[in-house]
Formats: sequence, C-alpha cells, structure tokens
Amino acid sequence: MQDCIDACQRCHEVCLRMAMTHCLELGGRHTEPEHLRLMLNCAEICQTSANFMLSQSSVHGAVCGACAEVCTACADSCASVGDMDECVQACRHCAETCSEMASSYQPRMARRDAGTSAGAHSH
Amino acid sequence: MQDCIDACQRCHEVCLRMAMTHCLELGGRHTEPEHLRLMLNCAEICQTSANFMLSQSSVHGAVCGACAEVCTACADSCASVGDMDECVQACRHCAETCSEMASSYQPRMARRDAGTSAGAHSH
Amino acid sequence: MQDCIDACQRCHEVCLRMAMTHCLELGGRHTEPEHLRLMLNCAEICQTSANFMLSQSSVHGAVCGACAEVCTACADSCASVGDMDECVQACRHCAETCSEMASSYQPRMARRDAGTSAGAHSH
Amino acid sequence: MQDCIDACQRCHEVCLRMAMTHCLELGGRHTEPEHLRLMLNCAEICQTSANFMLSQSSVHGAVCGACAEVCTACADSCASVGDMDECVQACRHCAETCSEMASSYQPRMARRDAGTSAGAHSH
Repeated sequence: MQDCIDACQRCHEVCLRMAMTHCLELGGRHTEPEHLRLMLNCAEICQTSANFMLSQSSVHGAVCGACAEVCTACADSCASVGDMDECVQACRHCAETCSEMASSYQPRMARRDAGTSAGAHSH
Repeated sequence: MQDCIDACQRCHEVCLRMAMTHCLELGGRHTEPEHLRLMLNCAEICQTSANFMLSQSSVHGAVCGACAEVCTACADSCASVGDMDECVQACRHCAETCSEMASSYQPRMARRDAGTSAGAHSH
Repeated sequence: MQDCIDACQRCHEVCLRMAMTHCLELGGRHTEPEHLRLMLNCAEICQTSANFMLSQSSVHGAVCGACAEVCTACADSCASVGDMDECVQACRHCAETCSEMASSYQPRMARRDAGTSAGAHSH
Repeated sequence: MQDCIDACQRCHEVCLRMAMTHCLELGGRHTEPEHLRLMLNCAEICQTSANFMLSQSSVHGAVCGACAEVCTACADSCASVGDMDECVQACRHCAETCSEMASSYQPRMARRDAGTSAGAHSH
C-alpha cells in the first residue's frame, strides 16, 4: 500500500505544480479547458486517494478505482498536448498502482445485492 | 447535476460536523476506529465529488461512483451506532444522487478496452 | 460563526466554478497565471477555513485571518479583470466575515512570547 | 521553499496517519476532542499550505503563517498527551519552516492601509 500512497502523492504534486506554473505560463493548448481541468481534477483525486490510504480506510479501494480512471484520462490529455512527459509518467504509474489496489476491492453495493438476492446481480 | 452537488455538500458538512463534535464528545462506540474513519472519509470524498462537478469535470462520474460507495458504508455504520439519524439520511440521499450520476458514466478503461478490441477509435 | 461558514462555502463554490468554467473558457486575461492561481487558491483556503469552523477548531481564527487575506487579493484581481462581479462580491463578503472571526483570535505565538517574557509558564 | 513544502507534506502525512490509526486505536486521552481535532486540523492546513507553495501562490505567506500557528498548537497537544514524539517533531519542524516563509510576507491589508493612509495604521 505504501507504494500506492507514494505514487498518489507524487502524481498530486507533479500535476498541481505543472498545471499552476508550466501550463498557465505557456497558455495555448496548455490552458485548453478540458486539459487544465483534468490536471487539477487529477491532483485532487490523488490527494484524496492518498488520504484514504493514510487513514487505513476500509473503502479505499473504491477511491483508488476512481483515481485510476482520472489518472488515465489525465495521462492521455498530457500526452496529446505534448511537452509534459513528467506528468504522463506520474499519471500512468499512479493509475497502475491504484488499479491494483482497486482490483482487490469488492464494491459494497455488489456485496449488499449478493447478500440480499443470493448472487443474482449481474455486475 | 446541481441536486447532486447540493447533496454532496450537505453530506460533507453533516459528516464532518458530527464526527468532530457529536462523536468525539460522546466517545465510546462513537469513536470506534472504523466508524470515525468512515465519517471523515465520507466527508472528504463528498467534498472531492462536489468539486469535480463544480468544475464540470468530464470524469466526475468515476468519483461520484466512489462517493456513492463510501456514503453507503458510512450510512450503514451510523445506523448501527444509532443516535445519528441526520447523518444516515444525508449519506443515503447523497449515495442515491451520486449513483445516478455514476450510472451514466462509462469507465474510460472499459472504453479503451472496447476501442482496442474493436479498433473503432484512435485515442 | 454560521454566517462565516456560509460565506466561506459560498466563496469556495463561486471561485471554483468560475475559474474552471468562465475563466478557462474565455481565456486571455481570465487565464493570466496570477489571476487563475488566486481564484483556485481562494477556493481552497475558503474550503479549509469552513472545515476548521465546522470542526469547532480552537485555532480557526488563524485560518480565518489567512482566508481574509487571500479573499481580498482574489477580489482585487477579479475586479481588475472585470466581468466577474459575482466573484468580487463573494470574496469581499467572505473577507469581511473572516476578518471578524480572526480579530477575536490571539495568535498562539504571541501568547507564548508573552508567557516567556513574563516567565509565567513553562511550555 | 522546497524545504517548507517537504515539511508540510511530511507533517500532513504523520498527523493524518497517527490520528486515524494510533490515536483512534488507543482511545482515552488520544481521542480527547481537542487533541484529535488539532491533529486533523493540522493535517489539513499543512496540505493547504503545501498546495499554495506548489502552485507558486503570491499569497502563500498568509497561509504559512496560519499553518505555523496550528502546527505549534498541535505539537503542544501531542507533547502533553505523550507517546507521540514523531508528531511533535514533524509539527515543530513544520512550524519553524512555515514561520520563516511567513515572516517575509507583508499582509495585504496592511499594505492597503499603508497605501491609503500613508503609514498611519496601527497593526
């Protein structure tokens, strides 16, 4: 789990710093709304994901799953903008470690459905 | 979407306030580690979820899905502790609105897998 | 205190929404680095300030003081950019209520200095 | 500035982890309301302070000043509870580096007063 915390904290730091300095200073496609939003969104969910793991939350897997999604979207956006290799790498690494954390987590709603209806759900 | 933002902000406020005042002051089962963690975790993911929607994030559905999971776990914990009806209601309402937001969101990874296997798009 | 919490939550919401939609979509002076940074910084400190008050923190006055500073800087920036009256008003109102909360707070360090110079306590 | 960012991130991590695991598991004076609140407040303002510096905010000094206050209060609380040396050290170190960052910052309100009334203000 510590690897995943480190990856989230690293990705948070890189995305926030790059968005607020590199991207804002360069402008153009670097401040295209969808791109800058994804970078700031990514920084925030990485922070939240790290905080869930630091607090040994029993539901951290759900947040890690969402974090992997957002990191993947941000990595794709950074790759298409170009000139942001540090971000691409931090996001891809964070997405990988978060996916692993999420894969061992069974959604509570699925568990509740299973408990109620004896495995009838189709997720 | 505004309904979901309102529900997240309300749930964040109720959980944080109750955890830091009601629960800490009563102690006993109210400060049982799993319970207090869930309340603070819930407050945080609701805040993050609201922030994603306020920023019109294209990936807010992933975070709303995680938020629904955490709210459901927190509602169950509050219901079993008792004496926390305001929290139970705020969490259940937030879980419902977030589930609706999440249900219209197709995970990026699923899209990527689909794209790769069918070769239908080039992202 | 509830008035100040409301003002902080309102200012957080207005600044975050305007920065991530209005400003990013218009570009130009709306995405000038110092301006967009101040709007996002303001949204964050307002959130933190509200969280301190919701948790009945004994040191909320220190954070409210910082929040008043940041809100004032953000209001000035929004006023000079123009076209952002909703933000200017939310920031100025939040700065006022936070200044009131801060004015009744005596910095701990000042108290410690006073304690040391008078030899009154041993911390 | 990087030293101060590192100190804030370290203090955030130590306080959050200790509050949510060590303190909640031990209970007793470790979950006394004022103590646990200060630890969670400290974790949050350290996170906010680090985020202001990562984004090269022009008003980070105001937040660093508040952070130093909260860290000092948290360190005192941890020292009196005992058994929390790692927290005491992280908080004291963070308070020191934040005080240095804050000392070079002139409050905006003081500057505005000075500009308006030619140095007549009494802060």
